[in-house]
Amino acid sequence: MGSDSDLEVMKIAAEVLSDFGVGYELVISSAHRTPAKTEKYTKEAPARGIKVLIAGAGYAAHLAGVIAANTVLPVIGVPLNASSLGGMDSLLSMVQMPSGIPVATVTIGKAGAKNAALLALQMLALSDKDLSGKLVEYREVMAKKVEEKDKNLKS
Amino acid sequence: MGSDSDLEVMKIAAEVLSDFGVGYELVISSAHRTPAKTEKYTKEAPARGIKVLIAGAGYAAHLAGVIAANTVLPVIGVPLNASSLGGMDSLLSMVQMPSGIPVATVTIGKAGAKNAALLALQMLALSDKDLSGKLVEYREVMAKKVEEKDKNLKS
Amino acid sequence: MGSDSDLEVMKIAAEVLSDFGVGYELVISSAHRTPAKTEKYTKEAPARGIKVLIAGAGYAAHLAGVIAANTVLPVIGVPLNASSLGGMDSLLSMVQMPSGIPVATVTIGKAGAKNAALLALQMLALSDKDLSGKLVEYREVMAKKVEEKDKNLKS
Amino acid sequence: MGSDSDLEVMKIAAEVLSDFGVGYELVISSAHRTPAKTEKYTKEAPARGIKVLIAGAGYAAHLAGVIAANTVLPVIGVPLNASSLGGMDSLLSMVQMPSGIPVATVTIGKAGAKNAALLALQMLALSDKDLSGKLVEYREVMAKKVEEKDKNLKS
Amino acid sequence: MGSDSDLEVMKIAAEVLSDFGVGYELVISSAHRTPAKTEKYTKEAPARGIKVLIAGAGYAAHLAGVIAANTVLPVIGVPLNASSLGGMDSLLSMVQMPSGIPVATVTIGKAGAKNAALLALQMLALSDKDLSGKLVEYREVMAKKVEEKDKNLKS
Amino acid sequence: MGSDSDLEVMKIAAEVLSDFGVGYELVISSAHRTPAKTEKYTKEAPARGIKVLIAGAGYAAHLAGVIAANTVLPVIGVPLNASSLGGMDSLLSMVQMPSGIPVATVTIGKAGAKNAALLALQMLALSDKDLSGKLVEYREVMAKKVEEKDKNLKS
Amino acid sequence: MGSDSDLEVMKIAAEVLSDFGVGYELVISSAHRTPAKTEKYTKEAPARGIKVLIAGAGYAAHLAGVIAANTVLPVIGVPLNASSLGGMDSLLSMVQMPSGIPVATVTIGKAGAKNAALLALQMLALSDKDLSGKLVEYREVMAKKVEEKDKNLKS
Amino acid sequence: MGSDSDLEVMKIAAEVLSDFGVGYELVISSAHRTPAKTEKYTKEAPARGIKVLIAGAGYAAHLAGVIAANTVLPVIGVPLNASSLGGMDSLLSMVQMPSGIPVATVTIGKAGAKNAALLALQMLALSDKDLSGKLVEYREVMAKKVEEKDKNLKS
Repeated sequence: MGSDSDLEVMKIAAEVLSDFGVGYELVISSAHRTPAKTEKYTKEAPARGIKVLIAGAGYAAHLAGVIAANTVLPVIGVPLNASSLGGMDSLLSMVQMPSGIPVATVTIGKAGAKNAALLALQMLALSDKDLSGKLVEYREVMAKKVEEKDKNLKS
Repeated sequence: MGSDSDLEVMKIAAEVLSDFGVGYELVISSAHRTPAKTEKYTKEAPARGIKVLIAGAGYAAHLAGVIAANTVLPVIGVPLNASSLGGMDSLLSMVQMPSGIPVATVTIGKAGAKNAALLALQMLALSDKDLSGKLVEYREVMAKKVEEKDKNLKS
Repeated sequence: MGSDSDLEVMKIAAEVLSDFGVGYELVISSAHRTPAKTEKYTKEAPARGIKVLIAGAGYAAHLAGVIAANTVLPVIGVPLNASSLGGMDSLLSMVQMPSGIPVATVTIGKAGAKNAALLALQMLALSDKDLSGKLVEYREVMAKKVEEKDKNLKS
Repeated sequence: MGSDSDLEVMKIAAEVLSDFGVGYELVISSAHRTPAKTEKYTKEAPARGIKVLIAGAGYAAHLAGVIAANTVLPVIGVPLNASSLGGMDSLLSMVQMPSGIPVATVTIGKAGAKNAALLALQMLALSDKDLSGKLVEYREVMAKKVEEKDKNLKS
Repeated sequence: MGSDSDLEVMKIAAEVLSDFGVGYELVISSAHRTPAKTEKYTKEAPARGIKVLIAGAGYAAHLAGVIAANTVLPVIGVPLNASSLGGMDSLLSMVQMPSGIPVATVTIGKAGAKNAALLALQMLALSDKDLSGKLVEYREVMAKKVEEKDKNLKS
Repeated sequence: MGSDSDLEVMKIAAEVLSDFGVGYELVISSAHRTPAKTEKYTKEAPARGIKVLIAGAGYAAHLAGVIAANTVLPVIGVPLNASSLGGMDSLLSMVQMPSGIPVATVTIGKAGAKNAALLALQMLALSDKDLSGKLVEYREVMAKKVEEKDKNLKS
Repeated sequence: MGSDSDLEVMKIAAEVLSDFGVGYELVISSAHRTPAKTEKYTKEAPARGIKVLIAGAGYAAHLAGVIAANTVLPVIGVPLNASSLGGMDSLLSMVQMPSGIPVATVTIGKAGAKNAALLALQMLALSDKDLSGKLVEYREVMAKKVEEKDKNLKS
Repeated sequence: MGSDSDLEVMKIAAEVLSDFGVGYELVISSAHRTPAKTEKYTKEAPARGIKVLIAGAGYAAHLAGVIAANTVLPVIGVPLNASSLGGMDSLLSMVQMPSGIPVATVTIGKAGAKNAALLALQMLALSDKDLSGKLVEYREVMAKKVEEKDKNLKS
């Protein structure tokens, strides 16, 4: 993430990964304030065993794009609602990448942090049957919760 | 894709996958007009060896979300510029998924179709070193083209 | 509605229906988290005597469209202001349905929940003269309230 | 519709109604230029056997709201892309009705004209089993067309 | 104004008119809930000596347009920030009037209520030299206040 | 108007004024390129018998606001669709005037040019019964045209 | 700045300039309420040794453009989030200047006030090596702070 | 600029610089496709005597921000209208820079390319009296052209 002010939202992604027993690193590194660190971290990521990169940033959120420009690992972007524009600036700065360098963009804010983690898990599950099974279970638990709420509503 | 009118854009994704020697299927199935077919196709996809699903749709583009609701395979959404709103309707209908069911959304239109294919390849490359190598080469070729254009400009 | 967090808004629709003595069911079922339940509920609705379906959802609000894809009963969509975009994401996800599968979309939020119930009553009143009469009375009461407020303002 | 320039789009609604064998009137009457005519037409509509009103208008599209204020018949609004804002002005002028007077708003433009007609048919079908059956058939034909396009794509 | 909830904002217009010693009426009448009253009030306005009409409304704000359709007196529209869209719905519903029936639209919200009153005074001042003089003085006072604030800032 | 490229739109306002037999001047003067000329013209306008000022401009359209800052005559703003943003930049630059200095903003583009002229005539008609009568006639002609179009449609 | 209500944001710019030991003046002068003062201040600025002008304003923010029209000194615009539109009105009123008169527009709000000061310093540093060195140091301190936050996060 | 497709717009900036006799380089280098080249070019720019950097890019336009992160020279951003969103994506990606790293953003498209060059000249003119004089002359010529157009209009 680009700033420690993004931690409140991005830790939701970390929690989901923890729940699935998948290792992760939380890193603060800015596309603009620490470009060298961001570049170095990204380029060394594959050698350190990192498979997927999740970038959360607000305003003109270049972090995901700058990371994506330095790796062929999949990069997921979480647009944050940090300015007065409701996150529309961050969303467009992430999703509207020119052709050649994709960023997998998810929902603005907390829902996006959760979805980013789940999307990363879905990517990893392509070669990990256990993880794939856990994702199926997760969906079933989620569905049951909705059904329970529906029952509570009726009683 | 949801309609054959989306073919002109979505075939760009197919071409990229062809160039990388990765198999794919082009399917027309609508979230709204053929919901049963869409659900059936999605649920049978893993058994048929499909790893990543790319959904291109315009207007209130539910296709990616409806697919994502029926699988734990990664789903990539390509918002199409089909209505009078420049694709903003399709973008928000794809990227703003509520928490729990992610859609990896990319650029609106042709740039998005290309990026969707590249993102799918990046996901597959997580467990395919050859493919990873090809993606690195692709980046190098892309960089060389930019440099050539720069040289042409100067001469 | 797609989530119990939508209840605060959607119960306004329920209250209007109650006031008119028209039966209704409040159901929590998500287009994305419980797609099977949503499909089953929708398909069984006509046999259970349901005439009109009202769907309230936020973010990329697919619920109304997914319901509409599975029935020829009229479907009314209430876009909810749940994300950081003021409900614009939900509005466009509901109203911009591609041709063939309409969603009758109303105002974002609480005004929309009320209007959804009134619109459903107007549809039912097409074959129910009593209900039609009640709607006319409701309008008169509403007009009187405005006139009373106007009088209060002046005194 | 508010102007004869809206005819090109709104006749699509007429054609759908014709295809279903349902009678209709095409009327040009403006909320702003002929308010008396619009009011008179709306108030006399029920006595003339009219069940549902479809209003297509561009710019600050008040037509649907003005009609809805003068009847308890269901009013469907088709926002038209007539100004330089892609129909966003017309959409918001129709869908954002204050509480008490609903307008059933559909897609901007041609897709909306078609959907308005289908929505009107769905309302009428609530008390017309034949029509309901025709709508089910229409859906099946629509689904078959999608499947045919899918087959053509593959061959 | 369309509702008593608009009073907090619209009374600012009243205060400005009071300060200039110009008579006014505050009326609550809705384009949608009391269309007949709105039409009647508007049509009788000239005979009662009313010169300019100011309409404040939120959501799909038709009030100004409906008034303008029934008079050739100048109509000023104040878009109110009443829904979740920051007043953009109300602004477009007022300012984007189709050709033939103008609404003089001013700023969204409180600044707009003040400006509506000043604009009305400017119109009246076209044939009232005293009022014109007062407006010039008002500008001078306003300029002095800015200069005083500037001085306070420096000391 | 701010530029000769605005002439195509703004001459529509001139034609309406001509049709009503009301004198006018067409002036090209820019808020940014010729600020001194704009200020001078505005300040001398009352002495030259000018009653209402109409400003048409595109992009960040400051012209109306700059004129309004230099006079207590009513200023009407016509936002023009000159950039790639559909006139939204020009609309917000005109209508969102801070409190104290109103601009009477009308529709973006050609409909706005026409409406600006009609609004100016409505202001002048406050003290000119003949003009007021002509405006009433104009409305009647406009209504008849709509009714003729409606008749043509039916035959 | 156009109003003392802008002081809370704009003093951030002043603080940055102080930190760099660069002199500045804080002035309240409005494009609309005190146009003469704004023009006079701008025209006399070069003679008084002023090198760069920073204008912060909300709503239809003409201040930067009006200043830019009266000088060839660089003018930096800070759009403020003062109305209900999240600063989008102010942003477009500043950045969308027609060709010929540029305004160097920065981020909406507090981030923009800081960036405006830094941009002004970068301009001054073009002919001031000491200042250029200080800016390089500032960047290093900023980078270190990010790295410290990253370390704190990990421990 | 990020791509040779941007040349048509960005050459306008080059022409303005030529007209003022100020040297420049036209470079194609992408923030995403050639990040290393972009970084290298930016870091070496001061040593090669470059004073101001102008970046033109479309879509999620990171180029200006990425350059700004690697230098303390002033960076001017020209948002280009390259996608289906009218340049709004590019504008927000440039102007909404987080605090610490400013980008001086100008108008979207051709007007912006011209303004970027003029803004660069204004910065250089801070320490170049001749250039400052030329800018004053340029303004006078521009003003004369407006006045000529005004005269032509009248005759």
